[in-house]
Formats: sequence, C-alpha cells, structure tokens
Amino acid sequence: MDRPTLYIANKNYSSWSFRPWMALTSAGVDFEEILIPFDDAGGNPNIKAISPSGRVPVLQHGGLKIWESLAIIEYAAELYPDAGLWPRDRAERALARSVSMEMLSGFRALRNACPMNIRRPRGGITLPDGVDADVSRIETIWRNLLQKSGGPFLFGAFSGVDAMFAPVVNRFDIYDLVSRKETLAYMETMKAHPAWRKWEEAARAEPWVVAEDEV
Amino acid sequence: MDRPTLYIANKNYSSWSFRPWMALTSAGVDFEEILIPFDDAGGNPNIKAISPSGRVPVLQHGGLKIWESLAIIEYAAELYPDAGLWPRDRAERALARSVSMEMLSGFRALRNACPMNIRRPRGGITLPDGVDADVSRIETIWRNLLQKSGGPFLFGAFSGVDAMFAPVVNRFDIYDLVSRKETLAYMETMKAHPAWRKWEEAARAEPWVVAEDEV
Ligand SMILES: N[C@@H](CCC(=O)N[C@@H](CS)C(=O)NCC(=O)O)C(=O)O
Ligand SMILES: N[C@@H](CCC(=O)N[C@@H](CS)C(=O)NCC(=O)O)C(=O)O
Repeated sequence: MDRPTLYIANKNYSSWSFRPWMALTSAGVDFEEILIPFDDAGGNPNIKAISPSGRVPVLQHGGLKIWESLAIIEYAAELYPDAGLWPRDRAERALARSVSMEMLSGFRALRNACPMNIRRPRGGITLPDGVDADVSRIETIWRNLLQKSGGPFLFGAFSGVDAMFAPVVNRFDIYDLVSRKETLAYMETMKAHPAWRKWEEAARAEPWVVAEDEV
Repeated sequence: MDRPTLYIANKNYSSWSFRPWMALTSAGVDFEEILIPFDDAGGNPNIKAISPSGRVPVLQHGGLKIWESLAIIEYAAELYPDAGLWPRDRAERALARSVSMEMLSGFRALRNACPMNIRRPRGGITLPDGVDADVSRIETIWRNLLQKSGGPFLFGAFSGVDAMFAPVVNRFDIYDLVSRKETLAYMETMKAHPAWRKWEEAARAEPWVVAEDEV
C-alpha cells in the first residue's frame, strides 16, 4: 500500500501530534508529513477539512483515515510488530495501555495550565489547583515502570508509552515542575532520543507564535 | 489463571464502569464483580485503595491490575479473540479504536452537563455551550458507522465500540437530546441488549443516591 501520510500541527505546540510522530519515527516507518499550522484566531479550517474529528493528528493510509494519537500508535504497532511499539508480553502490554490511556483521558489540570512549548526557556509559573496532583501521579507512574523495567525508557527500550508521555517531559522541563533525580534522568534520556532531537530542531525553526500557548 | 475480578462503582451512575462490564458480559467472560459505591462526600477511600489511578473500573487478573475502561476492553479482546470485541479487519479495527478513543478523551461538555443516570425518567434540561456540538459529532460517528456496517450495532454485531458509547445512549435517552430516527433505532437496539438489561435492573435496585449526578 501507499506510504502513509501523517497530518500534524505546529511542532512547537501540538502535543498530540508529537506523540504518534515520535512513535512512527522511532519505529523507522517511512511516512510523509503534512503540517497544518494552527490559526492563532481559533482553529485552522484546513484541519477540520482533513480530519473526521476536526483535530490532528490524522494518519492517512490508502483510503483509510485514522485519528486519535493513540489509535495511530496502535495501528503502527499492528503494521510493524517488530518495531517494539508495544511490549511483547500480554500483561506488560495491558499495563502499557493502562498508562497510555490514563494519559490520553486525564491530567487536564497539567495540560491546561502548562501547554507544551518546545522552544520555551525554563522558568516556573504559578500553578492552579490540581497540577501538583497530576505531576505527582505521573512521577509515580514513571517511577514504578522504570523500577520494574530497569529503564532507561519506561518499558526498557523506547515504546509507544514513552511517545505518549513525550509532551509531559517537555512540560516538566520548561515549567520546572520536578526535581527527583530519577525523573530528571528519564527526561534527559527522552530529550536525547534522535526522534526527539529531530522534532525539536524543526520546532525551533518554525515562524509561528501562538499567543495563548505562551504562558 | 484465576477468574478475573472487575471492580466497578454504582451501576446507576458509573459510566466508565458500565463500558468494560458490558463488553465482558457480552463476550461471555466469567468474571467476579466487586462494586464499591461512591461516597457522596467526595470520593470513596476504598476506590483509591484498590486502584492505581484512584479510579474505577479496574480489572484484576491474577497479580495483574488493569485500569482504564478501554485498556480493559483491549485486554479482553486479546484474551478472548473469538468474542468479537474488535472487528477482525485491520482497517475496521483502526476505525474502531479511533472512535473509541475519541469517546475516551473527549465530549467533556456532554459528560459534564449530562451525567449518566440509568433510573432517571426522560426529561430535557438547559444545556450549556458545547453540548450540542458533542451530540452532533456523536450522531455523525454513529450514522457513518451504521451506514457502513448496515447495523444493527456500530460495526454490525455488538463490539467494544458499542460498549464505549453505552453511557452516551443513556444520556441521549434520559435528557431527550436526539430525534433522528436512525439514532433512536440504534439506542433501542442497545437498550434491548441482554447485558444492558441486566445492568439496568441492578442499577434500579441500588439504594444509593448521588446528589450531584441528579440534574
Ligand atoms: N485526543 C486527541 C486530541 C487531539 C487534539 O486535541 N489536537 C489538537 C492539536 S494538539 C487540535 O487539532 N486542535 C484543533 C485546532 O486547534 O484547530 C488525540 O489524542 O489525537
Ligand atoms: N478514563 C477513565 C475514567 C475513570 C473514572 O473517571 N472513573 C470514575 C467513576 S465513573 C471514578 O472512579 N471516580 C473516582 C471517585 O469518584 O472516587 C476510564 O476510562 O476508566
């Protein structure tokens, strides 16, 4: 079948785009990328035009459109079973999905108060209620997984779960939200991943500024 | 391995519990059920005690705990591949996951304004901004899938996707949110499913009233 196309938004800001992009890139999938920048004034009509849900990311493969970041990662895990996107062991895979879906459906206090912003220099902000609890739950998830796997990634080698948490790594970093040594070490591991560096370089080169995500 | 145990909350109100319960029941899985009722005054400590995320549903299978409604359905689909929880075709399955994850991560206006409440008699309420858009997007998803599959369920036979939308069927019904003939027909199909009826009967027999979910 055709080479798949991944529709994404701004690399500097689009946290949901980052997740499957990092997963596909780390898996060595040969895909085309189409970036539709956010319109600062509330929604780019081109995103609505290509996406069934009105949001990116969307993966197009032949006549099939897949939306939702984690559904794209599941599809890639099926197409490329040797890429290691999910753990091979069924129980581990169930755990991988539990934490990935907790990320997908939750942590709204953190996500709302602390937008991903790859270029932003590090510096704290005043945190509204709920952010501390989100940060602490995510640190617990990471600690448990790293202790069990031995690291350096959450399930040992890089997987789709790390991709799901990649934007959180940026948030913890730029808003200076954590200080545990093991958490910082995992973040350094993520930021040194070749796919991360490639995304970061492109984000830094982008011309667009989205005012509401600059906090 | 041991018979799995599904931890849930009140059948009348716990929308996330309903999803995997309906999926496991329809799949004929032999599971034990442990119901931890919500404490009206902000959170039952017994839920926090058994759940890694502090929320139900949780499926325990031997030493493994799986949380997140959809992760439990994925696990059941792996354990019981013949139960039809996911479509057999890869492209269909990708679509099934896209809409299931759109449900898992979205439709917050509808979810916040219109709590699931199995016992509630039908009657409209004043709807805040955003609910209409959620209802209309869900009707579009259902219409597209029913047209493609021919019904009576979203992918033809009952699947995990129907389970993910089950609480929405109740919301559309009790708050009188929809009027398209095809939407209503799908809702009747769902409400006639044996697993739905079993859940409903138990919900009606529950003694607990959660004031904040009575709107
Ligand atoms: N749950 C979705 C969330 C997708 C999402 O919210 N995407 C944002 C960009 S990060 C979007 O497309 N917003 C539409 C817009 O701003 O026009 C997923 O995991 O893919
Ligand atoms: N994304 C989660 C949501 C789970 C959730 O929010 N569960 C609610 C009940 S429906 C809960 O346990 N709340 C905790 C409490 O009220 O004590 C899932 O899909 O399982």
